[in-house]
Amino acid sequence: MAKRIGTRTLQLDAVVTGSAAVGGKTEAEGPLGSRLDAVYPAADAGEKSWEKAESAMHADALTRAIAKAGCTPQQVELHFGGDLLDQCIGTTFAARPLGIPLAGVYGACSTMALTLALAALAVDAGAAQTAAASTSSHFCAAEKQFRMPLEYGGQRTPTAQWTSTAAGAAVLQKAGRGAHLRALCFGRICDYGVKDAANMGAAMAPAACDTIAAFLRDTNTQPDAYDMILTGDLGAVGSRLLLELAEKEAGLTLAPVHRDCGLLLYDRAAQPKVGAGGSGCGCSAAVVCAEILPKLAAGALGRVLFVGTGALLSGVSSLQNETIPAIAHAVLLEKE
Amino acid sequence: MAKRIGTRTLQLDAVVTGSAAVGGKTEAEGPLGSRLDAVYPAADAGEKSWEKAESAMHADALTRAIAKAGCTPQQVELHFGGDLLDQCIGTTFAARPLGIPLAGVYGACSTMALTLALAALAVDAGAAQTAAASTSSHFCAAEKQFRMPLEYGGQRTPTAQWTSTAAGAAVLQKAGRGAHLRALCFGRICDYGVKDAANMGAAMAPAACDTIAAFLRDTNTQPDAYDMILTGDLGAVGSRLLLELAEKEAGLTLAPVHRDCGLLLYDRAAQPKVGAGGSGCGCSAAVVCAEILPKLAAGALGRVLFVGTGALLSGVSSLQNETIPAIAHAVLLEKE
Repeated sequence: MAKRIGTRTLQLDAVVTGSAAVGGKTEAEGPLGSRLDAVYPAADAGEKSWEKAESAMHADALTRAIAKAGCTPQQVELHFGGDLLDQCIGTTFAARPLGIPLAGVYGACSTMALTLALAALAVDAGAAQTAAASTSSHFCAAEKQFRMPLEYGGQRTPTAQWTSTAAGAAVLQKAGRGAHLRALCFGRICDYGVKDAANMGAAMAPAACDTIAAFLRDTNTQPDAYDMILTGDLGAVGSRLLLELAEKEAGLTLAPVHRDCGLLLYDRAAQPKVGAGGSGCGCSAAVVCAEILPKLAAGALGRVLFVGTGALLSGVSSLQNETIPAIAHAVLLEKE
Repeated sequence: MAKRIGTRTLQLDAVVTGSAAVGGKTEAEGPLGSRLDAVYPAADAGEKSWEKAESAMHADALTRAIAKAGCTPQQVELHFGGDLLDQCIGTTFAARPLGIPLAGVYGACSTMALTLALAALAVDAGAAQTAAASTSSHFCAAEKQFRMPLEYGGQRTPTAQWTSTAAGAAVLQKAGRGAHLRALCFGRICDYGVKDAANMGAAMAPAACDTIAAFLRDTNTQPDAYDMILTGDLGAVGSRLLLELAEKEAGLTLAPVHRDCGLLLYDRAAQPKVGAGGSGCGCSAAVVCAEILPKLAAGALGRVLFVGTGALLSGVSSLQNETIPAIAHAVLLEKE
């Protein structure tokens, strides 16, 4: 039974008994490339469209996570999944052949944290013995949908981030071996008026700050209580802003423990095309499912506060001159 | 604590302490028009775009439901919301000013059932004392996004349905006065190969049949145990198919108790433009939040199995010649 502490944090317990991540060529060439369960060198992954490629990678990550948890799809009682594509077709078409009850979610790039949180809640509440959490993104599909046709060859600004071509999935159960998800904090929308869709890090930093501050306050802990406070995809610009905001607005010094999935997945010096770092649902999914959860399961990491960050804009909202609402969901991941 | 019965059904308990729905002109002219909490006669609802109009209506329904539950937004600890617009901006921009922790969901037109199910799960599990569930749709915004520019004036086929301009919201709490949500069944994807985006009813009927059959089997009940088995938006075509499928595939005679929100919200004889009936997230949201939940709260209805139906296509998936995956989530609503 979940226990509410403070204003927004929930304590509960679920075990991540399996996780898997797959990625594209650029992700494979990054520092975590060797951690990926599978690599898709071609952008189309052998499919007829980028959207179908994303679905195929999503299905692959999900199927691998289920197998690594020692389960069959029939044993998974509930699946929380979502992605960036319009109407979440990356998830829908990946889930179609599996026959697992599906609760679709939308949290933009915060989706991995949101699906982990909801799956843990379902498992902890007895709503499912076994629940899955998954997400994906694809550079080409996202560029086409949110920005410009790739063929246009538009210049990218220095603040722009690189949507990861990747998918990640995890399986949560009440008992078993693996990292524990022991607390969570759902985010609320923060909008500081940023309108530049090529500067998502700046739009999302206030949401990350809000959720981190709430979680630390609710749990009465300081940043040094964590091996890592890991944001989803703030990139270089957003990460710098987060550190400043946390210091100024909440009196928190995050620098010693703060890491960002968007900066871990790529080597910006060796891979300059990624700009300010990685982004997209698949970015934090790949880092968490391929690197963080296995390290927690092996005891190489002790305690990670994973804060998925999402920019809740759409192509239409940007064209209508709207600002970018952002959100950040946090899950506390601990070793056994 | 949720109790799993059979293969897919969960028993739990949450009280719907408040609900509200708002609609547009066509909805106000329908048989349930007088039940709406507010009517927006202009398609733009005084906003600068149809999308902003949908957000405004969504926010209005949500705010009214919270007030009718006797709460302030600050007391709502978790909000499950979603809609049909790309990246769910109908929900995001509605939720932005409220500061309520938001778990975004995507279930296409099944969203009202999905958000009710998740909110009940959260309340029952102690994750939130008070949780909100909401959704919306807008005829003009949906036509523009999924089909043709309205200015094009395309002919509609006889199977086509009318996306409702409406929003609905409900507030769930552990105790209080109102209808009870006592069981739920998450849907799984069914795809019978329908490709016609102007015949969503046909695409969704198999999913409705699958979930209804699972729920009745799990609970060991027959259709006559319910005052109503209420599907979301199958319309005239999908409803006929559901009755046939249920008879043939599950040996269930649903006709005496089956109703469909898409057929209840409009008078097809007096409002021929609605074609085969209503659809869209707002359709079942309006019927359930304005008519069903209040009638259950007043004891005028006893037991309603509400089965939200969703077609998980996108404009892109249709253009890529994909079939339409569908899903149906069920919640059991009972009088006090």
